[in-house]
Amino acid sequence: MSFLDRINKPNDIKDIPVSDLRQLALEIRRYMLENVSKVGGHMASSLGVVELTMALHLFLDLPKDKLIFDVGHQSYAHKILTGRKEEFKTLRQFGGISGFPKISESDCDAFDTGHSSTSISAGLGLVKARDLRGTDEKVVAVIGDGALSGGMAFEALNNAGRLKSNFIIVLNDNKMSISENVGGMANYLGNIRTNPAYNKLKQNVVTALNAIPEGGAHIAGAMKRTKASLKQLLIDGMFFEDMDITYIGPIDGHNISHIKYALELASRKQTATLVHVVTKKGKGYRAAEQNPVKFHGIGPFDKKTGEAKKKGGQSFTDVFSKTITELAEKDDKICAITAAMAPGTGLTDFSIRFPERFTDVGIAEEHAVTFAAGLAAGGFKPVFAVYSTFLQRAYDQIIHDVCLENLPVVFAVDRTGIVGPDGETHQGIYTNSFLPHIPGLTVLEPKNAEELKESLKYAFNLNAPCAVCYAKRQTDDIFDSFTQDPVITTGKAEILSDKGNVCIFGIGPAMWSAAEAVNILKDRGIDVSLVNLRFANPIDTKTIISVAAKKKVVVTVEENIKRGGIGEKIEAILAENNVKYGKLLNLALPDAPLKQGKVPELKKATGTDGESIANAIKELL
Amino acid sequence: MSFLDRINKPNDIKDIPVSDLRQLALEIRRYMLENVSKVGGHMASSLGVVELTMALHLFLDLPKDKLIFDVGHQSYAHKILTGRKEEFKTLRQFGGISGFPKISESDCDAFDTGHSSTSISAGLGLVKARDLRGTDEKVVAVIGDGALSGGMAFEALNNAGRLKSNFIIVLNDNKMSISENVGGMANYLGNIRTNPAYNKLKQNVVTALNAIPEGGAHIAGAMKRTKASLKQLLIDGMFFEDMDITYIGPIDGHNISHIKYALELASRKQTATLVHVVTKKGKGYRAAEQNPVKFHGIGPFDKKTGEAKKKGGQSFTDVFSKTITELAEKDDKICAITAAMAPGTGLTDFSIRFPERFTDVGIAEEHAVTFAAGLAAGGFKPVFAVYSTFLQRAYDQIIHDVCLENLPVVFAVDRTGIVGPDGETHQGIYTNSFLPHIPGLTVLEPKNAEELKESLKYAFNLNAPCAVCYAKRQTDDIFDSFTQDPVITTGKAEILSDKGNVCIFGIGPAMWSAAEAVNILKDRGIDVSLVNLRFANPIDTKTIISVAAKKKVVVTVEENIKRGGIGEKIEAILAENNVKYGKLLNLALPDAPLKQGKVPELKKATGTDGESIANAIKELL
Repeated sequence: MSFLDRINKPNDIKDIPVSDLRQLALEIRRYMLENVSKVGGHMASSLGVVELTMALHLFLDLPKDKLIFDVGHQSYAHKILTGRKEEFKTLRQFGGISGFPKISESDCDAFDTGHSSTSISAGLGLVKARDLRGTDEKVVAVIGDGALSGGMAFEALNNAGRLKSNFIIVLNDNKMSISENVGGMANYLGNIRTNPAYNKLKQNVVTALNAIPEGGAHIAGAMKRTKASLKQLLIDGMFFEDMDITYIGPIDGHNISHIKYALELASRKQTATLVHVVTKKGKGYRAAEQNPVKFHGIGPFDKKTGEAKKKGGQSFTDVFSKTITELAEKDDKICAITAAMAPGTGLTDFSIRFPERFTDVGIAEEHAVTFAAGLAAGGFKPVFAVYSTFLQRAYDQIIHDVCLENLPVVFAVDRTGIVGPDGETHQGIYTNSFLPHIPGLTVLEPKNAEELKESLKYAFNLNAPCAVCYAKRQTDDIFDSFTQDPVITTGKAEILSDKGNVCIFGIGPAMWSAAEAVNILKDRGIDVSLVNLRFANPIDTKTIISVAAKKKVVVTVEENIKRGGIGEKIEAILAENNVKYGKLLNLALPDAPLKQGKVPELKKATGTDGESIANAIKELL
Repeated sequence: MSFLDRINKPNDIKDIPVSDLRQLALEIRRYMLENVSKVGGHMASSLGVVELTMALHLFLDLPKDKLIFDVGHQSYAHKILTGRKEEFKTLRQFGGISGFPKISESDCDAFDTGHSSTSISAGLGLVKARDLRGTDEKVVAVIGDGALSGGMAFEALNNAGRLKSNFIIVLNDNKMSISENVGGMANYLGNIRTNPAYNKLKQNVVTALNAIPEGGAHIAGAMKRTKASLKQLLIDGMFFEDMDITYIGPIDGHNISHIKYALELASRKQTATLVHVVTKKGKGYRAAEQNPVKFHGIGPFDKKTGEAKKKGGQSFTDVFSKTITELAEKDDKICAITAAMAPGTGLTDFSIRFPERFTDVGIAEEHAVTFAAGLAAGGFKPVFAVYSTFLQRAYDQIIHDVCLENLPVVFAVDRTGIVGPDGETHQGIYTNSFLPHIPGLTVLEPKNAEELKESLKYAFNLNAPCAVCYAKRQTDDIFDSFTQDPVITTGKAEILSDKGNVCIFGIGPAMWSAAEAVNILKDRGIDVSLVNLRFANPIDTKTIISVAAKKKVVVTVEENIKRGGIGEKIEAILAENNVKYGKLLNLALPDAPLKQGKVPELKKATGTDGESIANAIKELL
């Protein structure tokens, strides 16, 4: 019987003899690897926090105590230790358990996470609730050094400094966000972590201070009076102490008893207390240790070789990657910005070829957008490549710093539409509701590789704010049998086919299913017109009116929640212009969170796959 | 001839003899006071930075050099010094100049600001542009200590640490955001600024260090070996130095030559350099010095006494203020949160009566929302009182941390609709486009005082996310002559009158004008039905359909941009449900920035005042 067999509910770990915890850690790693290699997931960060998670579970009394994992994709060991060992086999799958903490999944998950840098804020809320109630549960937030670069983590630290009761912040320092960390804070942590000279000097100074006689006299071989040398006087974690946060560390993040001791020490303070734990991303699995970026979020892979199971064809991200590099070759005003997502957004090539024109700002979407605005105000043509779900963070900056000033910033909005296994916190299904209404923002949603290329060219020539939105998906082309119009004209839709009494208006990620539906219905003897709106703003009112007016059935399709979406926009246009049509069908996603699953599964479940669209139309006729 | 008479274009200040600069400062203050007392404005912060602005103008070569004022409402002296002295008389008025920097107004305004904490990001963009281009203009961002608590300022500082070229950040430290500053950072700056023991100890340590013989021996009366004492070793600004930002200061912010000298020193560094300047809010005008909170943003006032010119009646903010205190009296689960806006949002009373349940998080809207979510997860009923325009900052947190988890957070969204003299950066005219589509968020927009009260009660009983949105406006009641339904039922509109062939669907701040239009048309012999939608989500589809189906003319009215607004939503409902109506009129604001002016002026200019609505309907009939 393995030790893992004895772990079946929260706190079972407390019955494992201390001497066997290393073996349990090994078994947890093997179990994670076994399962994640089949379905994909966030491998490297989860491997890195096995001992940290175990120490937390030994220290805490769950679910009474409250444990929050920032971002949350490192919570695999936590799930295994809290009665979800069997369900772990369904991780990130349709109908299975989430890859992130969920209150709805277990009372040991104190707060849902997914986006970065939220845990200290949420933890402070739970602390305030505890103190108002007068109870005594512990509250712990685990946050990575990468997530610390997100502004709201700093907002929360700034507030944590006022606390007069206990709150433990575990800084899980693995020197990475997804790529390597950037900025002053990363350097600072690096100094604490790694610089022996720095630590030695510190010790010398402490010794020396103890040796100062009162009113000590003049000098022999004294230390220089410069700031540079004084800086070395810093004790560990002074940065946090300056914010009135108690600092403990750095601690070896793979030594369970050391971590547990530090946590116990921390729990005695009547202040916010930061425990600085140093871990290795990918720990215990050589392939992931050697290439933590690749193993950050990975699809199914061969666990022996660490090789990812290949997907054929090219993705929209690949097309963006290639196009942006080509365009930058010809136009030296083009700059690219990422918020810690160069590989995911396809900017790695760009960063190698044009290092001067590339900026990774760290996990800091708000800054990224306003920094881009500054670059544009300075005469350059920045593109911010970002996932739709993370761009939500910068809604205000898009309006306030880019669009009010009409600055030519390009947004390459990857992961628009249904995203898949990451689930409800990562879906790009609000894109049509939060971008196209912004005054002055042109929004394009290309249907395939060729159109994405042209859209990007268009965007850089527009000299005004422009978002180009595309899905996390392969670009296999279904559109060859349609009449395509490769020339992009402002606010002009593309009529892919115009026959029969039914028309579909589709946009972006939904175009593929729309085309599929047209093909299916054609096979069943029904001719359907297909319009690719191309622009979510300005929308092609003229084409919508003229095509719809001729049809008996008007259908809109999008991979977006219905409220505030393009379907409603089209309906509004038809109503406002008093267009007479027969029946109307608005096919969009439900106005509700959309859980994890494979994209085809989620499309089917929401009635936005080709077959469902075809059936819905058939039924209406 | 006064010195101010000699200031007519940028750089004219350089011709004023150094010995006369104090006199010029006095004249600038008088001129500001003279004009702002008539029209209202941001008095205290503008008075505080007169010398700082003059020093910057002496130091810089405008418009070649780039100067960015964070938030921007402290830019009055800058405007006066850059050829806008005459136009300053039209400050914040319809057709006049803005109360904030505007690229479109002067090439001496390098970047538009209004919301907090953006200037370092924008400045870094301009620096990057300069360095890529290889030019040598200076770039300076002026940011207040209050704005430093905003997370994106930290994101930017974190990036500034990497800079290998010059960028000057002037920290204008007046110890206030709008109210007094909060949090660890504020304490830290306070230590640098004010603690004589701290500064003395620092000097002693530097002296002592110089006195240490190499390999110094044992101890007599040595300093304690605790962190608490070591902390005192800190040199000024170590926090920033830790971020790899050079620190210079603190400097007396009312001494022009000292500031200028510090700026010159700073400009020689090939790093981001922070110049810490200490100023007094309201400087030179006793009433404002004594009460900087009152004089932060103020309407017209008597410049002799400092008394604000009274407005009659009660505002929606007053009603919120009173109601929230009453509700909290009865329910000890209710907590209130503000982001540095207790007076503006009406939470001052609450903070005095329930200090334990009140939290001012500083300028930190993102944190505020997720902190509220944490409180709700902990079993409390938090309300975040915030202006609509600032809530834009937390769009992602509303979705990700509140609504996905269905946590009962109440948002009291003040300044919904047209705001007035603050202009395009502060209008609440995106409210209907960015809130009601969020899955799981109930959105109420009460029309008057009574309905606001009931809406708040409803919100706290809902046990789910709920936004209550209302305008910056008096609640003088025009609705007495209509049939009101005081009981709020989920998703149910209120039919205020139902007669004639025309109906108006109105919501929130637009209800007043809508009612006015009904009265005007009644006087002209035309009966018009009036429906108060009350809920922006869930919207009352049933009532919309049943009322619209009976009418020849359907009109929608809202104080929101048209795109993504309630008008479009109603049109979509009519289309989707195949409702037959005669004519349709969607009266909303243009999809464009809306400049400053008085609310009635802006309503008139956009055709959303009662008279315009009445005329538009008349024309259609």
